[in-house]
Amino acid sequence: MLTPDKQISITSDGIKLLKKAKEDNIETVWDRHDAQQPQCGFCEMGLSCRICIMGPCRIDPFGEGPQTGVCGADADIIVARNLCRMIAAGAAAHSDHGRDLVEVLEAISEGKAPGYKIRDEAKLKLLAGEYGVETKDRDALSIAGDLAHSMMEDYGMRRKKVNLVSRAPIQRQKVWEKVGITPRGIDRETSEMMHRTHMGVDNNWQSLLLQGLRNALSDGWGGSMIATEVSDILFGVPSPKPTMVNAGVLKEDQVNIVVHGHNPVVSEMISLACQSPELLEKAKKLGANGINIAGVCCTGNELLMRRGIQMAGNHLMTELILSTGAVDMMIVDYQCIMPSIGKVASSYHTRMISTSDKAKFPGMEHHEFHPDNAQKKAMTIVEMAIENFANRKELFIPVKPQEAVGGFSVETIINALGGTADPLIDAIKQGKIRGAVGIVGCNNPKITHDYGHVTLTRRLIENDILVVDTGCVSVANAKAGFKVPSAIEMAGPGLKEICGALGIPPVLHLGSCVDNVRILVLVSALANALGVDISDLPVAGSAPEWYSEKAVTIGVYCVASGITTHLGPMPPVTGSKNIVELLTSGLDDVVGATFKVEPDPEKAALLIRHHIEKKRAGLGLDARGVE
Amino acid sequence: MLTPDKQISITSDGIKLLKKAKEDNIETVWDRHDAQQPQCGFCEMGLSCRICIMGPCRIDPFGEGPQTGVCGADADIIVARNLCRMIAAGAAAHSDHGRDLVEVLEAISEGKAPGYKIRDEAKLKLLAGEYGVETKDRDALSIAGDLAHSMMEDYGMRRKKVNLVSRAPIQRQKVWEKVGITPRGIDRETSEMMHRTHMGVDNNWQSLLLQGLRNALSDGWGGSMIATEVSDILFGVPSPKPTMVNAGVLKEDQVNIVVHGHNPVVSEMISLACQSPELLEKAKKLGANGINIAGVCCTGNELLMRRGIQMAGNHLMTELILSTGAVDMMIVDYQCIMPSIGKVASSYHTRMISTSDKAKFPGMEHHEFHPDNAQKKAMTIVEMAIENFANRKELFIPVKPQEAVGGFSVETIINALGGTADPLIDAIKQGKIRGAVGIVGCNNPKITHDYGHVTLTRRLIENDILVVDTGCVSVANAKAGFKVPSAIEMAGPGLKEICGALGIPPVLHLGSCVDNVRILVLVSALANALGVDISDLPVAGSAPEWYSEKAVTIGVYCVASGITTHLGPMPPVTGSKNIVELLTSGLDDVVGATFKVEPDPEKAALLIRHHIEKKRAGLGLDARGVE
Repeated sequence: MLTPDKQISITSDGIKLLKKAKEDNIETVWDRHDAQQPQCGFCEMGLSCRICIMGPCRIDPFGEGPQTGVCGADADIIVARNLCRMIAAGAAAHSDHGRDLVEVLEAISEGKAPGYKIRDEAKLKLLAGEYGVETKDRDALSIAGDLAHSMMEDYGMRRKKVNLVSRAPIQRQKVWEKVGITPRGIDRETSEMMHRTHMGVDNNWQSLLLQGLRNALSDGWGGSMIATEVSDILFGVPSPKPTMVNAGVLKEDQVNIVVHGHNPVVSEMISLACQSPELLEKAKKLGANGINIAGVCCTGNELLMRRGIQMAGNHLMTELILSTGAVDMMIVDYQCIMPSIGKVASSYHTRMISTSDKAKFPGMEHHEFHPDNAQKKAMTIVEMAIENFANRKELFIPVKPQEAVGGFSVETIINALGGTADPLIDAIKQGKIRGAVGIVGCNNPKITHDYGHVTLTRRLIENDILVVDTGCVSVANAKAGFKVPSAIEMAGPGLKEICGALGIPPVLHLGSCVDNVRILVLVSALANALGVDISDLPVAGSAPEWYSEKAVTIGVYCVASGITTHLGPMPPVTGSKNIVELLTSGLDDVVGATFKVEPDPEKAALLIRHHIEKKRAGLGLDARGVE
Repeated sequence: MLTPDKQISITSDGIKLLKKAKEDNIETVWDRHDAQQPQCGFCEMGLSCRICIMGPCRIDPFGEGPQTGVCGADADIIVARNLCRMIAAGAAAHSDHGRDLVEVLEAISEGKAPGYKIRDEAKLKLLAGEYGVETKDRDALSIAGDLAHSMMEDYGMRRKKVNLVSRAPIQRQKVWEKVGITPRGIDRETSEMMHRTHMGVDNNWQSLLLQGLRNALSDGWGGSMIATEVSDILFGVPSPKPTMVNAGVLKEDQVNIVVHGHNPVVSEMISLACQSPELLEKAKKLGANGINIAGVCCTGNELLMRRGIQMAGNHLMTELILSTGAVDMMIVDYQCIMPSIGKVASSYHTRMISTSDKAKFPGMEHHEFHPDNAQKKAMTIVEMAIENFANRKELFIPVKPQEAVGGFSVETIINALGGTADPLIDAIKQGKIRGAVGIVGCNNPKITHDYGHVTLTRRLIENDILVVDTGCVSVANAKAGFKVPSAIEMAGPGLKEICGALGIPPVLHLGSCVDNVRILVLVSALANALGVDISDLPVAGSAPEWYSEKAVTIGVYCVASGITTHLGPMPPVTGSKNIVELLTSGLDDVVGATFKVEPDPEKAALLIRHHIEKKRAGLGLDARGVE
């Protein structure tokens, strides 16, 4: 824990629900984290290798024991391979999420996805144009079919580069060409990464890591970008909407359905079913004043962005929220769903439903959703939730909900600015806004829940740095009250003036974790407007409480895209001085950006501010000293 | 070590060269294996998880410490995820190898691969037919281009199934459909496997393992099968050729070039360059009586199968062979190349050359081969080897070479049988041949070098079981003298009679590790001829000394294809009783085959014989008791 008193969470609902969970004899992620102490030092340093069964091998970090594995791989090679496999898994996860959306797009075009439709034809046509799909005099469904097929080619091996790479500033594309890391196929880069990390393939830590960058770029400018864009086509481009956050969004008098996971394909259908007059009628008959859908994790963020649906919590709240006793049903798709939650739910009346053919969980009922049955399944499942309302026992909803505004797509931000990025650029040039930081990523029981996110965000906006956030951070920051227009009172004078004039909060919710690509699109627009590369901009990324392989991949594609990125927890690389040096310094010469690791968000704020002022100076703008 | 006296190798050249290496102060794989003792028990049991950085986590196998990781994953989930990632890496390795061949095929069709050509038009047309590519009145290059593009689609996500799956007996295809493991895209299955093993995705050990089977099948009936078939198109279908094996194939009076790795794309070009009159002339001028190319590992097997090129050794000989002082150059591509060998070579005059953009190594010069420059590069590199002949110091070629015959493609075997599999089937029906076993896989310093392979092979042929082998096993068995026609003297009476009549040895060299797909094709032919499923046949697979993730994948696709498979070393799964039970027994109900784990090859021979006699009985054939 980072805070002196070993506080578990800075959130009121988190603290109260943890107390409730303990009273209910619920084992939580913190208990399991404690039970795992001390964690394996070899694994933490990246020095354990089990890539083949001549091993498992360990490198002695003190230099007294073995310095190579059985095959002869040294610390650099072993650390690089382990890190690269994390990147591969993260890229695969996001990109497979994107794949599912592309398959829905195809199914719609074939008339095989009842309930789904093209909600944003303008965006469909925009994407079709980028993919070279003819749009003139063609109906949306035909365009959708061709676009889906062309996007599928991005997953294959026939393209020389993933199509949306061409969205990056030309200077950035040239960097990638020069270094040889332009991603070719989305699945291909993951496969090649897994191949290269097999025993006896790539045994050069630099070239391994370069493929790691390429693999991550195949996610950022490939799989994740496709995920976000197709989600916008299918479910609408987000625009600002008021919402509520924290455990208080659960309602005593309504059926509460919590959606958990990442892909909007299922949760959108659930959301529609919750509005069905027939089911609302049934809920009333059974004594409920309505059906309340709330999110945890990113599938909730997807709904929040497009429908203003409320968020009950982020990663470390996913177990605790069940201890309210108010969740009649939790419906999960995939990613970041702790396998513990089925067991937690068994202490309450909550019904747990898994929906993806790719993800089953202990203690859950499996109801598999596919494009052709999703609409119908959603009705059935919601009806089950309604029926479970009667089984409620004691309720404990510990707090009142907090207001927030979400839904800041790039399109929205540009609209809010009057149609171009110029007002933002002017504000940056004038120094009213010093720069912008994307704070992204997860929670991790190694860090006091939400402390990293909220502390860093507060320090940045105080210093006139605009914050955009996604994923778990967006929930933390919304709960902390940063996402109402009056939050400008917490901002420095310049940021306060600009946000005040635009009527936006100083912290903008950009969406789910795959929506980090909206940050890539935004910084590309800024760079193009200024005629510079992304790496020249006074911007940074940060993942103060990250835990997952997806976060590793996001960090790597941000850095490879020229965005210097801060990490709270240290990745498992400290076993290799060379790799630590490359990631935190050497990459500057390769891609013009690096990682900065600092678990203390107060110190991280200084590091990031320093970086932003340095970039301002590089652009010939006024630069402040950072004390 | 398994042999009572802790013998390192059963091979004469291995023992002598290890002694020489020790005298030369060379650190070998055995030294590093000793230095790693004791190896981590958690990792060996599959109970260590570092999939996310809430961990690393460990499950206490004694039940006293933690039984779940921080996320809540239990031993079953953790073991399954770890095993599945091994499968993913193995499938990715083989399939990426196949991809490289498909890209050469495409480059040839575009006139961009000087020196490469279509060597087997009949096989090209056969494959084109299987892929639905029009062949009538078309030239080979056009067909090749279309075939390459259609194969590329197998790597993508648009197909409902990988094309060559249709080669399997219809009964087997139905099993896969029923269980839901028909592979769709080659890279796709690897990506989905990596996705599913991310934190919070698939947390059901059964469904994880089913995706593992599908991922492995995408290799066996996808990537590896494409690798073998395209290699045949480009370099010729193998046919029996005499060759020599062991360290004695190095020649005192010739320039010795050793090729190491897996993909014939580079080694074929090297092999051609070695026959260049201009370079032979240069070699003579510099005092050498020729240029001798020899193989270690599978790229050597590829050359042996098609050109009769000699094999200097298998996996555990790759360091030792350098201690002869007779290797003027070692040229590597990728896979199973210990990163130690650059350092070993630095004690001798050997020049070490890496050639793949995917694989660099410490202590090697990197000369990158691509289809467009390979012919020219090969000439340059071989010339460098010739020039290095003069730098030789002391030589130690410890043994005389052993004769052998290799090159048994399925086409060759069927030809040898007179054009149909009937004579083999008749011999099996009559009980003269009890069955057939494919012995495949690697070496592993945990097992006395080649002891597992040779002992098991001897016991099987003694008992009238035909052995086919690939990879490291094929070299071990050739060195042991099993691959000359007179080796029938070591066979049981029935096998002796049949092999004697056909003029073939009782142990047939089927090729490299990707060539294990030839076994799939062969057993499919047998099953179809008998009108049964593969799982009904009196056949088995075995990997007595495996070490690599590729071997895991091969084992899994064999079992998923209905071939019960023996493993010498235990995979890292003993932390989960459920998974051990599923792999060694439960899978019988799912795919009609299981794994059998037995490190002692004498006991393994009994297990396999018992299995074969059981399958004979199942087919209504006479069955012997196995004592």
